[in-house]
Amino acid sequence: MIKSLLPLLLMLTLACNSKAPGSCPAQPGPTPVAATPAKAPDAAPPLPGPVLVPTTKLASDEGMWTFDNFPSEKLKERHGFGPSQEWLDKARLSSVRLAQGCSGSLVSPMGLVMTNHHCAHRCIQELSTPQKDYIADGFLARELKDEVRCQGMEINRLVAITDVTDQMTKATAGLDDQKANEARKAEQSRIEKACAVSEDVRCDVVSLYQGGRFHLYRYERHKDVRLVFAPELAIAFFGGDPDNFMFPRYDLDMTFLRIYKDDKPAQITTYFKWSEKGARDGELTFVSGHPGSTSRGVTASMLAFERDVELPFRLMMLFELRGVLKEFAHRGPEQKRISGHLLFGVENGIKAMRGMHGALLDPDLFGQKVAAEEALKNAVAADPELKKSVGDAWGGIGKAVAHHRGVFKPYQLLERGWYPSPLFRHARALVRAVEELPKADDARLPEYTDAQFPILRQGLISGAPIYDELETTVLGLLFSRIRDELGPDHPFVRKVFGGRNPAEIAAEVVAKTKLKDPKVREALLAGGKAAVDASTDPLIQLVRLMDPESRAARQEYEDQVEAAIKTRLEAIARARFKILGTSVYPDATFTLRLSFGKVQGWEEAGKPVSPFTTLGGAFERHTGSDPFVLPKSWLAAKDKLDLTVPFDFCATNDIIGGNSGSPVFNQAAEIVGLVFDGNLHSLGGDYAYVPANNRMVAVHSRAMIEALRKIYGADRLLTELGQ
Amino acid sequence: MIKSLLPLLLMLTLACNSKAPGSCPAQPGPTPVAATPAKAPDAAPPLPGPVLVPTTKLASDEGMWTFDNFPSEKLKERHGFGPSQEWLDKARLSSVRLAQGCSGSLVSPMGLVMTNHHCAHRCIQELSTPQKDYIADGFLARELKDEVRCQGMEINRLVAITDVTDQMTKATAGLDDQKANEARKAEQSRIEKACAVSEDVRCDVVSLYQGGRFHLYRYERHKDVRLVFAPELAIAFFGGDPDNFMFPRYDLDMTFLRIYKDDKPAQITTYFKWSEKGARDGELTFVSGHPGSTSRGVTASMLAFERDVELPFRLMMLFELRGVLKEFAHRGPEQKRISGHLLFGVENGIKAMRGMHGALLDPDLFGQKVAAEEALKNAVAADPELKKSVGDAWGGIGKAVAHHRGVFKPYQLLERGWYPSPLFRHARALVRAVEELPKADDARLPEYTDAQFPILRQGLISGAPIYDELETTVLGLLFSRIRDELGPDHPFVRKVFGGRNPAEIAAEVVAKTKLKDPKVREALLAGGKAAVDASTDPLIQLVRLMDPESRAARQEYEDQVEAAIKTRLEAIARARFKILGTSVYPDATFTLRLSFGKVQGWEEAGKPVSPFTTLGGAFERHTGSDPFVLPKSWLAAKDKLDLTVPFDFCATNDIIGGNSGSPVFNQAAEIVGLVFDGNLHSLGGDYAYVPANNRMVAVHSRAMIEALRKIYGADRLLTELGQ
Repeated sequence: MIKSLLPLLLMLTLACNSKAPGSCPAQPGPTPVAATPAKAPDAAPPLPGPVLVPTTKLASDEGMWTFDNFPSEKLKERHGFGPSQEWLDKARLSSVRLAQGCSGSLVSPMGLVMTNHHCAHRCIQELSTPQKDYIADGFLARELKDEVRCQGMEINRLVAITDVTDQMTKATAGLDDQKANEARKAEQSRIEKACAVSEDVRCDVVSLYQGGRFHLYRYERHKDVRLVFAPELAIAFFGGDPDNFMFPRYDLDMTFLRIYKDDKPAQITTYFKWSEKGARDGELTFVSGHPGSTSRGVTASMLAFERDVELPFRLMMLFELRGVLKEFAHRGPEQKRISGHLLFGVENGIKAMRGMHGALLDPDLFGQKVAAEEALKNAVAADPELKKSVGDAWGGIGKAVAHHRGVFKPYQLLERGWYPSPLFRHARALVRAVEELPKADDARLPEYTDAQFPILRQGLISGAPIYDELETTVLGLLFSRIRDELGPDHPFVRKVFGGRNPAEIAAEVVAKTKLKDPKVREALLAGGKAAVDASTDPLIQLVRLMDPESRAARQEYEDQVEAAIKTRLEAIARARFKILGTSVYPDATFTLRLSFGKVQGWEEAGKPVSPFTTLGGAFERHTGSDPFVLPKSWLAAKDKLDLTVPFDFCATNDIIGGNSGSPVFNQAAEIVGLVFDGNLHSLGGDYAYVPANNRMVAVHSRAMIEALRKIYGADRLLTELGQ
Repeated sequence: MIKSLLPLLLMLTLACNSKAPGSCPAQPGPTPVAATPAKAPDAAPPLPGPVLVPTTKLASDEGMWTFDNFPSEKLKERHGFGPSQEWLDKARLSSVRLAQGCSGSLVSPMGLVMTNHHCAHRCIQELSTPQKDYIADGFLARELKDEVRCQGMEINRLVAITDVTDQMTKATAGLDDQKANEARKAEQSRIEKACAVSEDVRCDVVSLYQGGRFHLYRYERHKDVRLVFAPELAIAFFGGDPDNFMFPRYDLDMTFLRIYKDDKPAQITTYFKWSEKGARDGELTFVSGHPGSTSRGVTASMLAFERDVELPFRLMMLFELRGVLKEFAHRGPEQKRISGHLLFGVENGIKAMRGMHGALLDPDLFGQKVAAEEALKNAVAADPELKKSVGDAWGGIGKAVAHHRGVFKPYQLLERGWYPSPLFRHARALVRAVEELPKADDARLPEYTDAQFPILRQGLISGAPIYDELETTVLGLLFSRIRDELGPDHPFVRKVFGGRNPAEIAAEVVAKTKLKDPKVREALLAGGKAAVDASTDPLIQLVRLMDPESRAARQEYEDQVEAAIKTRLEAIARARFKILGTSVYPDATFTLRLSFGKVQGWEEAGKPVSPFTTLGGAFERHTGSDPFVLPKSWLAAKDKLDLTVPFDFCATNDIIGGNSGSPVFNQAAEIVGLVFDGNLHSLGGDYAYVPANNRMVAVHSRAMIEALRKIYGADRLLTELGQ
């Protein structure tokens, strides 16, 4: 549900998205800002048509607004309500981010966090065993002591925003592309390090408006997160992949987690209360959360690259992985169980990316992006100062994109595509950590700086289970891709694979490596370079053998593509910023945003789609065949339920992957729903918001209460929620 | 090897190609000409640059020439040799077509046919059992009585070509698109019926130059085809998928078949003899064979559709199928064996289509296609008569292509995508045959006419094995695709699937159907409509339930897309034909063509690629890990072999999928090699021939003799070949 978060971050990541967020924690790749200039934020002229004067009115409900630049006045004009600063502060402090790629909200003074089931899917799977399958059966901690820790999960709460634009801009002034790119990363690392004073603090410098602004975000880090409640997957994801991104919908995609401090529930003063009636038709709704990434402000040449090269390539890889995983599940029930989370993310990624690909192939949408770019070019050309400072930035980006075509495959294959293998990611994190950590902080790869490494480290030493059979299968496939895409005579393939074939190598390293044990990983990390150099672990040796070329591919991409694009996008962004100021919102960057909208259906092929479904509708859609099978608990409780209670609903709020788990709240800042998806049309939202049919999809607050009370008997929770 | 044959014919067909030809025999779809106007033939201006005057010289070795319009004079000018009519007749009559999608040559007076191993792969697999695996071990009939029949295989020899352009053109004069399309098919069926006087004759009306010319091709049909010799797959396809479409190469991709008449070897008077020295560097080489399909003459809008919609869609489907099949093979050795042929075709299709996709994404190539189209448009506009007859044909095709976007998926999914399931194809052929056969001949679907049905029938009643486990897996995947692409609420999905999910349906119908028995199929066919209507076979019932929508999707495509394109392409073709005449060759249509070229390497990334490999090179490339494992027979014979003997070679001949198995011969019409592939650059050959690096790849004649003699001890064969 909801499109992939950070879609350019990982080749196969189409799974590192809002629906399968737990998959990306330990990805030892660059942070979004550093690694994805192509997706860095910007202020895009809203569709339809290019707008190049500061807007005085809101033309639609478009916008993922930062909390420090929320258009309260204009909103009042449009919807009759403009939030106060106090209201905004409350909403911000009641919102949290799941570091692995989701959003959530605080809903009790005891640190209770509401988010989606699919945001906790990985944790729920990892807590399960062949004997007790919480994915199939659901989970309810009857008492506090029954709450169980989610390994490697981390929750962040944004506590401060500081503008560091001057510092960042100064650091790169007068430097060439490559030097500027290095200086930017070094300055970012210095700022973050000065801020991250303890392991309980996370500090990220984020680039907004494509480098038009840089902000330092300071978060509380909560690393002790425990599972409180999860329904059965069959109802959390009722309708499965076929219904994913669709509406009408009948999903109870909810989970409760709790943040702990010193082994006790965290004490919270600011949190959301529950609305009595929940979302009503036409009501003004707010969503606060962390949309992962949009590309509304990048150039047409970058979009064309995504359309012609990047998305087709990734989709092919994902389709193959899906085929492998579906057939892998036929090996037996245990294999089905351990591969469920990965398949889940892959299917979600496929559906999301196909929607994005379809949007880019739509001549109207693409034509409007081109027209908007032309309008901006003309505005720049008409201003002598801008003309001088921007130069032929678009042409320069076009050249960098052309270069990207040549280096795309090695970069993706050698450096990025390891998402589906936790084991490989651990090995690489170890091999690199011992190289990077001894360096000066600002000379390290960004994910190994003092500010960022704690996040990577947490995943590395976590006790999350590793499944040999699945690892062998997935690594075999990934090695195959490398051999087949680069060719058997590529120097890298010859060096790393020798005479062996991909399946043989995967089977051997998985069988023999000791890295499956977190204690072994921790010891190697503690032992530093000497320990890793001396290691005879076959996976460590393999990764060491691969690393020079992997790093070189990354360097090539960063120097020749990223650097050239970033400098020019910044120049364009500064020009656009000069013209438009902050009358627009920046592209999504997995930072906290507030969107508004109203509960409203849309028209599909000439027919109206109602904005609500009911609990009764789920029973009508139940066929008894997977994925349309209601859990036994639901079938047994049918007679007790009020079947007229709204189940899911849709609204016009502008959201994107990363918003999964976001609270939906009303003017009184009361919970009325829980975001878990967007409709099919929302998938083009990466490139443009189309008011007519882009809809977010949420679980209705009353459905959650009805189910907790009458199906799950979750009395302790209801009391805590004040219900 | 060599790109997919008839690439637009079948959704998943990427396997119905020259490397896995046996897969497509019973495809109950339209014949290539009828079904793929988009790929119908035309005379494309050769790259580089548009040429719109009749050429007086050959600019390169480009061209798949028909035998009745071979440029002997110009060839003499270019290469110093121009074939006589007698020479041409001999080459034509010594060439054969494997109806399932390959080429071959007659090489002895006793009906011995040389073709590729991959052209007989399906037969070799089907003759194998868990106890005796001829794919792994190879096959050699020591005596005539040991030769075994290949079920369902058919070989055609072209004996007459008649121009029927006037008849065909007259039939459609003055009619609107849809009526013209129907009239064209009806006239074609009448002409074919009048020609196909017995089951031993096959008659096809073929459209050349995109409808600029129609020819009636009459073939001898040989249905009793037996396997004589096949090497081990490990050497026939040494290097496997990684080396596919690559060069240097070390493959003995050869097989001998024999055509029988009245249970005895067919007596042949015209056949190729063997060259003593084989192909030499720089030598003029000829290839006669049946290139399947090229799109050198279609419009830019059609190419854009292929690039943006068709190829990405098919590639995704194929990648998933590959994932499923690779993992299916893990179930055990028997599963690996029975799925080998399908995987083989899928991998080949993937590699071919990615090459095609890459070519279309190349801005230079696409730009040249657009420029050529502009030049033709201008030439048409400058001629008042042409201007009137052609009108805005390009605009009209553009509209039809836009309509195609909307109907593409249902057409592909419901009507075309069944290639990987022989069982489904049989069921559909039965359900439709009993509907179609009672109709007037010219009112039937083209594949059920009196002229064409015998070909379909042969596959239907053949005893080729059906593998339950593989059928269940493949059908489950295909049903999934339908449900997921159309959505669970699509009326077709609701009607056909009811509450069941794809895997359940597949498992049930495969388990319960009796159609696995060819006698049951034959009885149902004999019983006609009454028998099929009364059948309680679950697969028959399922196909009957699906058929109305499947037929409707086909009708919609044929009426709204095919008809509109065909009429306009014909108008454009007539204009081009008026300007250029037959100074150019028509697009490939799986009809017999002659190409010329010379043995020559090319330059890859600044380095020369030698045109030859040697037997010794294979031993150097042997690593001992699949797919770089030489068979035991080779390792054992190493000391006896002359390792300096040329193994494979490349030449500039212009070929494409369907040419697999074609003979390579010299000026004396002696065999010097056996075509089995093209290099990676040849994959763009669907759209344009690039002289600098498009190369065909062939087995050298001396390698074949050396292996037959010293490795396989095939003395009977060597004697028959005069060696």
